[in-house]
Amino acid sequence: MYYPEPLAKLIDSFSKLPGIGPKTASRLAFHVLQMKEDEAIDFAKALVNVKRNLHYCSVCCNITDTDPCRICQDKSRDYSIICVVQEPKDLVAMERTKEFNGFYHVLHGAISPMEGIGPDEIRITELVKRLSDERVQEMILATNPNIEGEATAMYLSRLVKPFGIRVTRIAHGLPVGGDLEYADEVTLTKALEGRRELS
Amino acid sequence: MYYPEPLAKLIDSFSKLPGIGPKTASRLAFHVLQMKEDEAIDFAKALVNVKRNLHYCSVCCNITDTDPCRICQDKSRDYSIICVVQEPKDLVAMERTKEFNGFYHVLHGAISPMEGIGPDEIRITELVKRLSDERVQEMILATNPNIEGEATAMYLSRLVKPFGIRVTRIAHGLPVGGDLEYADEVTLTKALEGRRELS
Repeated sequence: MYYPEPLAKLIDSFSKLPGIGPKTASRLAFHVLQMKEDEAIDFAKALVNVKRNLHYCSVCCNITDTDPCRICQDKSRDYSIICVVQEPKDLVAMERTKEFNGFYHVLHGAISPMEGIGPDEIRITELVKRLSDERVQEMILATNPNIEGEATAMYLSRLVKPFGIRVTRIAHGLPVGGDLEYADEVTLTKALEGRRELS
Repeated sequence: MYYPEPLAKLIDSFSKLPGIGPKTASRLAFHVLQMKEDEAIDFAKALVNVKRNLHYCSVCCNITDTDPCRICQDKSRDYSIICVVQEPKDLVAMERTKEFNGFYHVLHGAISPMEGIGPDEIRITELVKRLSDERVQEMILATNPNIEGEATAMYLSRLVKPFGIRVTRIAHGLPVGGDLEYADEVTLTKALEGRRELS
């Protein structure tokens, strides 16, 4: 072993992170060595706090440090719409648009027979429970536009329709700023199918 | 703020590391969220220990958790040679060759007038002190083969020669496995200058 033990341990911890190889790990560890002690301690506290103070919201299953989460507590939001997303990151992406004012439901995954993930492995039971709330009128399916996301949307759509709730799917089409020339056939087909009349 | 505070803090800590942008930082933070609590605590401990338990070796200025460091304590090594490197990483690179059995001196930088780093900013005083040890017969200058490294080597060579110690510089030339076709002119010139007779 060429590095003193504390340094070797930190390099090891960094290299366990996704996308961080041994070279990057040692670069990061050396950076920590140059940090102020306070900064390193803050970093360490942040690591532990994430594990200790975060859990799933009992309503929408998002990651939160309060229960229910801040969004579920927000009484100014529209109770009639629930937007279903796969991951907490997707919720953040939706929030960034500042266009959606309803509530969310985070599935923490998508149905994937290939990986052995069935409807019971993701947070569908919790979602169905929420639909008994009479205020809910629409469910937007904002799962990813890939095989797993589509399968999940299809499954949820069939499951939820009997409740008499409107089920919608976010639109597929050309991304804004994209190039028709480089769009793949499937996207272009979806864009054609989803065409709308200009007023 | 879209993320709960503990998560936002961890993302912030990660994004302060070199080469880690906001996207990667949030990916890493979500990975920590999925880790076992023990693992996260180990990571946190490693961070703090690096700051608390590591310091510079009082002899060679390398980073160490003992004093003097393990290399300086090793009595089987050759006291007659000191290899001067810029950074602890360079020492590790030298050790990996398993070809050098002398001692090291880590400068922690190189002379760089452009960046306002003069001889007093790096560990030269400590190096000169060590040369009063009569056992030292050779000093190998293994600073980087760039402007700053060359300037430092030149400076040290002039400083140390009056001590009657042999001063050598590691060879410049083509890297093993390299391609003559793609070698730059300076490297090729150095390789020509440094040519040796085959026996």
